[in-house]
Amino acid sequence: MAKKTTSKAAASPAAATPKPATAHVKERDIRTQKKILTLAAEIAKRALAGREPTVRIPMRTKTNTIWNKKRGILEMGEGAVERPLFDLKTAKQFMQTMLHASTVKDLIDAGKTSSLRGVFYKAKHTVAGTKENTFDTQDESDPILEDLEVALGALREELHVFAENRGSMVGNITVIDKGDEINCRRMGSGGYAMPSIVEPDIIQFGKCEAKFVLHVEKGTVWNRFNEDRFWEKHNCILTHGAGQPPRGCRRLLQRLNQELKLPIICVLDNDPWGHYIYSVIKQGSISLAFESSRLAIPDAKFLGIRAKDYRECGLDDAVKIDLTDNDIKRAGEIAAYPWFAGHKGWQREIDGLLKNGFKMEVESLITKDISYVTETYVPQRLKAKDWLE
Amino acid sequence: MAKKTTSKAAASPAAATPKPATAHVKERDIRTQKKILTLAAEIAKRALAGREPTVRIPMRTKTNTIWNKKRGILEMGEGAVERPLFDLKTAKQFMQTMLHASTVKDLIDAGKTSSLRGVFYKAKHTVAGTKENTFDTQDESDPILEDLEVALGALREELHVFAENRGSMVGNITVIDKGDEINCRRMGSGGYAMPSIVEPDIIQFGKCEAKFVLHVEKGTVWNRFNEDRFWEKHNCILTHGAGQPPRGCRRLLQRLNQELKLPIICVLDNDPWGHYIYSVIKQGSISLAFESSRLAIPDAKFLGIRAKDYRECGLDDAVKIDLTDNDIKRAGEIAAYPWFAGHKGWQREIDGLLKNGFKMEVESLITKDISYVTETYVPQRLKAKDWLE
Repeated sequence: MAKKTTSKAAASPAAATPKPATAHVKERDIRTQKKILTLAAEIAKRALAGREPTVRIPMRTKTNTIWNKKRGILEMGEGAVERPLFDLKTAKQFMQTMLHASTVKDLIDAGKTSSLRGVFYKAKHTVAGTKENTFDTQDESDPILEDLEVALGALREELHVFAENRGSMVGNITVIDKGDEINCRRMGSGGYAMPSIVEPDIIQFGKCEAKFVLHVEKGTVWNRFNEDRFWEKHNCILTHGAGQPPRGCRRLLQRLNQELKLPIICVLDNDPWGHYIYSVIKQGSISLAFESSRLAIPDAKFLGIRAKDYRECGLDDAVKIDLTDNDIKRAGEIAAYPWFAGHKGWQREIDGLLKNGFKMEVESLITKDISYVTETYVPQRLKAKDWLE
Repeated sequence: MAKKTTSKAAASPAAATPKPATAHVKERDIRTQKKILTLAAEIAKRALAGREPTVRIPMRTKTNTIWNKKRGILEMGEGAVERPLFDLKTAKQFMQTMLHASTVKDLIDAGKTSSLRGVFYKAKHTVAGTKENTFDTQDESDPILEDLEVALGALREELHVFAENRGSMVGNITVIDKGDEINCRRMGSGGYAMPSIVEPDIIQFGKCEAKFVLHVEKGTVWNRFNEDRFWEKHNCILTHGAGQPPRGCRRLLQRLNQELKLPIICVLDNDPWGHYIYSVIKQGSISLAFESSRLAIPDAKFLGIRAKDYRECGLDDAVKIDLTDNDIKRAGEIAAYPWFAGHKGWQREIDGLLKNGFKMEVESLITKDISYVTETYVPQRLKAKDWLE
């Protein structure tokens, strides 16, 4: 049976779960809940006063993204659009925004979290008396949730919505995760799987001797460093984000950087993708510019792989992978980013990549020796403070 | 500079690492090392006797895959091909096989492991005095390593080669990973990241109160079960494999099943992909048939999502996702697998999917309630032992 949108939005949150709704509510949740109720109250007020209900949505576009040079991060500008109910172009999106706000309220009341897909399913149904679906695919749902994030000024994590967990961590630190003390010095070959939501009310930091974080791009490289117990020999924390690090990983790195004052040192591939990953870790991304202040790490360092390494490390020709036309195009785009454009070191670095005509992966250092990367390459660069920032 | 293949193969393993080669060698490694040395000795013997060097490679093809009904697993048949050196069609592959055998010997001597990509780089170089590369892409390298696995009768894990770590675990068990005691009852929201190599000399099982393993398809679903502390309430272990579970995850599930006698109960999507994942967990796959006896779990159970659930659980139309033409084709192929062909329950199940005309994901149960899947659906099915096997 199709559910009515109205009854769903109006339903008591307590009905969704047998537990008392208030039992789980934390300070952060009270804040978010208040924002949702304020949004709802404003809309109801307008409607009751005979005025058109509408939501104001800040714009998540390139034109509304500002490079804050002083802070060293990307920020969202002041641009916003109205999303009125009585407009054929926006009526459906208005309804979708309300549905997601209602789901988020239910989640917070119940003290539970959900995936993006779960939120999509929760809101997906046929509107009573019509053949119209509230949502057809998740592609429609995810951007509405991002709209809600910016409209409320609350992160997805604060809305109790998580992404796939991705990335692992080991090293000289104890992490408290939902009250469980996790000793990252004793996590074997597997490591601690970094969760998607790592806000301070869920994850706290315990004892930490580590002096920095070494963040590598891939799990296979992380395995090499963990097997060689790099984090023990060099007193650090070792993380990876399985490629482009997800929000949970970036947020945890930022917290380690801001709260524990640990430098974040990245070992990524020598290619435009590696440069882009670094750029996102450091300055944030255009699509998530509204939360750069919670994710970006302006003083993150790029240790390598560097364009000069082929020559400096005396690498075999086997390490060369020809740049594709797309790589060359991407390198040009990245070089033109405002935060790289004025940076002599990065201009030289990207130039070096293009002049080489080839890219190199971290794994290619195995051609020197199985543990060259952990025993020679990274230690030498660390000692010489030879990195880009 | 290009390295010579001969000097590389002949190099003392001790030269590759400053540590004494013997220090790390374990029983399993001694066995594998012996197999490599036997292979090398036979080839040298043939060459010195004036006979052509050749390697015998068992065939990893569908025609050489046998369904062992009694054991309930797929097995590799007796078929094999020779790979002689003095044949233009096989000379390069012969050389590649030798190179990988040499790399594996180096890895075992050094007591280290490497990724598939690392092994590729280790062997990739220009053959001295020619413009010919030993390997051009990793696509060439991975199958040669699988050839070596079957030729030596040693698993990839025994060859010290790992894949990307994937999947997480929590629950009523203590795992000892490289000497570190990991209490899976205290792993917070993130969980223990399952490593790629989980052989008994690396991973041992400590105290375990759990009575079964609940294996779910995706990390987002795993989060729901972990957040609701399902493993605590139902005294079990909770795992996911981030989609099609990698070898490390399958091997760990098999060890939990064989050594600790824990039933493996799967909660996967109601679609051909979910059925295929179950099939691989249970019987093994054609491409890895040679290691089914180390990976397959013939008594694994499929708890859901079932085709009947739309009706039985009274689900909303929102959960329906239309079957594509490819889904219908795949469903037919899976129904024809010998282990499903003679199984009335599975024939009915696949028939039900096709008759429904739609598929359903585990996440769609959120349309009933956020925790319907953990508090109602799975507990009811477990109690009624309502599953397919």
